[in-house]
This record gives sequence, structure tokens and C-alpha cells, in this order.
Amino acid sequence: MKYPEAIHQLIESFMRFPGVGKKTAERYAFYVINHFQEEDILGFMEALHRVKEEIKPCTVCGHLTDQERCDVCRDDSRDQRKILVVEESKDVMVVERTKMYDGLYHVLNGAISPSDGIGPEDIRIKELLNRLKDEKHQEVILAMNLSDEGETTAMYLHRLLKDTDLLVTRIAYGLPAGGNLSYADDMTLLKALEGRKKY
Amino acid sequence: MKYPEAIHQLIESFMRFPGVGKKTAERYAFYVINHFQEEDILGFMEALHRVKEEIKPCTVCGHLTDQERCDVCRDDSRDQRKILVVEESKDVMVVERTKMYDGLYHVLNGAISPSDGIGPEDIRIKELLNRLKDEKHQEVILAMNLSDEGETTAMYLHRLLKDTDLLVTRIAYGLPAGGNLSYADDMTLLKALEGRKKY
Repeated sequence: MKYPEAIHQLIESFMRFPGVGKKTAERYAFYVINHFQEEDILGFMEALHRVKEEIKPCTVCGHLTDQERCDVCRDDSRDQRKILVVEESKDVMVVERTKMYDGLYHVLNGAISPSDGIGPEDIRIKELLNRLKDEKHQEVILAMNLSDEGETTAMYLHRLLKDTDLLVTRIAYGLPAGGNLSYADDMTLLKALEGRKKY
Repeated sequence: MKYPEAIHQLIESFMRFPGVGKKTAERYAFYVINHFQEEDILGFMEALHRVKEEIKPCTVCGHLTDQERCDVCRDDSRDQRKILVVEESKDVMVVERTKMYDGLYHVLNGAISPSDGIGPEDIRIKELLNRLKDEKHQEVILAMNLSDEGETTAMYLHRLLKDTDLLVTRIAYGLPAGGNLSYADDMTLLKALEGRKKY
């Protein structure tokens, strides 16, 4: 016995999401069928339609926005000297939520990953270099993820920029708040040790 | 800084799903934005639209179908004597997948739960009793979930049917395949003990 085609199609759609297997996709699909009202479905469809129509990368920094330039890039009160470089648009939101950074951003939209065939030309490095021609920018803060791809990307950018007048810095990595040393993975532990300071 | 309205709306839609918190909803939303092509979005929207338009409960057993009567109810080769009673349409799929049952089904569309204000009249018990007037049906197999609600529902049905000529049976509950005794919850353990057989 097979699912009716419409249910099958919906399950397949949900299975495309990261970390969603068949069981979870079925749960989601049946939740839609059993619990979503007409207006919930329409709202969901509208949201899907709208993100594809309205959401584009900011023409300056690459952060996702429904404007031509994102909120940060349009805000002249932000410190134009600093550019924090992240892999993804979502990372901008994470940093913004802390309210502890007042500079600009640059979204690479990925990270260098030779094994996935993603080279420097596949992410927004050229756009970063173009922006950096403007002398108002003085510091580039590398904030890649702590992963092989993040490391490779940071190293690549550091090499590109080290002979310029720009200050290139990198955010600190180490044991997170509430982190238990015995559960820390090797890379976190390595960074925690490398980054140790005199007590 | 807030998400653009369209992203916000999409995140809110995803947060309505069971077990999906803000972080997961954000991950899904950004996955749509970054990885879904135009046709993926359209396919997703179409599936949402279609399930609401096409999928209805089978007029006989209540199983979700895009026909008037579901595949099982239309299949005369199925054993008309047995009706397996389940809480949800999804449960029918689970049993069908085993290919070990050739009778009919009845989907209650829920279970009795006084604490949630769900009484016998809120689930498809009346429809079951109507079906059972047809004497071709001889056995009612109760296959509720092993939960307080499932127990209550099974007990209720058993009381309703025990003075009829129908054979009322209940599926076995106990330690699952691969189940570790020390991880079993109380109810599973209780059922495993109650259901013990002479070795």
C-alpha cells in the first residue's frame, strides 16, 4: 500500500530538509494534514513564495535582505572601519543578537572545501576584496566556523590580506560557556590550549 | 536587527511543527532560501495545496485517502472478518508495511483523553459501531498505542463490545526487538511481565 500521491509528494518535500529522515517527514506531513487549517496552509505557502520572491543577498555585504542593501549596510552609525567575515547570513543574526558588535559584515556564503569542490572563487571572496579597496575599512575580523572548511577559509583570507595595511584578526575559539572539558572535541580542545593566556 | 518579514513568516510556519523549536525552524528556513530552487518551492507549495484539497478520510474506515474509499476498503480480497482498530492513519501505513496483516482497518483519529477534553464522542467510535452491525465482521483487534490514552480507549471499546458475538483481541505489548530491559519504561515493563508466557 502506498501513500496517496499528494501525501507522498509532501513527505518527499520535507525529506529534503537537513536532518529530516522518512519518519520525521511523515510526522510533519501528517501534522499538516491533521492540524493545519486552511489559513495555516495558505500562510505557509505564502511564506515559501515570499522568501523566494523577496529575499536576496544585500548587494554590499551578501547578508539576506528584502531591501537592496541590508539594515546594517544602510545604517551609517555602524562602525565602518570593521568588517566581520562570516560563512552564512544566519551567522550575522547570531552576532547581531548579542548586540555586542557595531561594525559591518561580509557574508561569504559558504567556505572553501576542496573535498566538496568548493574553491575560493565559489564563495564571495572577490566581493570582499573589492569592498576592502575602500580605505574606510581598517580591520577584517575572521569569524569562520571551527571546522576544517572554516580553518581553510580563514587561512586563505589571512594569506591574501597579510601584506596589506589591514588589521586581520580572528575571533577566539575554545571551550564554550557551560562546556565540559571531558566532552570537548579535539579541535575545540586544541584551540582552547593554543589560545591559553597567562593567569 | 530583525529578520525580513518573509523569513520571519517562514520561520514561524516551521515552528508550528511538532518538536521544531526556533533554531531548527531557522535552519529549515535558511535551507529553503539557500538550497531550494524555484521548482522545489513550487513543488512544496503544490504538495501543501494538494494534501488539503485531495486528502480526506476514507468514508468507511477513516484512513486518509485521495479516493472516496481507501485502497484497503476497495480491495475485496482483504479478509472482511477482521478489523484492526488504530488511533491514526499513519498507524495503518506502519502495519501495511509489514505485509503481515490482510484484514480491514478502522482509524479512530485520536484516543480518549479526559485531561485534553477528548471523550469517546470526539473520536470515530460511533462509526466503528455502525460498521460492526455488518455481520461479516467477526474480530476486532485493538491496536492502540501503549499510553494512558491508548489504554483508556482500549478499555472503553472492550467494555462496549464484550457482550456482543464479536471476538475482541488486543495486540501484544512488551519489550521491543533490540530493546534493553534496563532502558524500558515502566509501562513497557509492566506489559512485558503481564504478557509473559510459559517457557
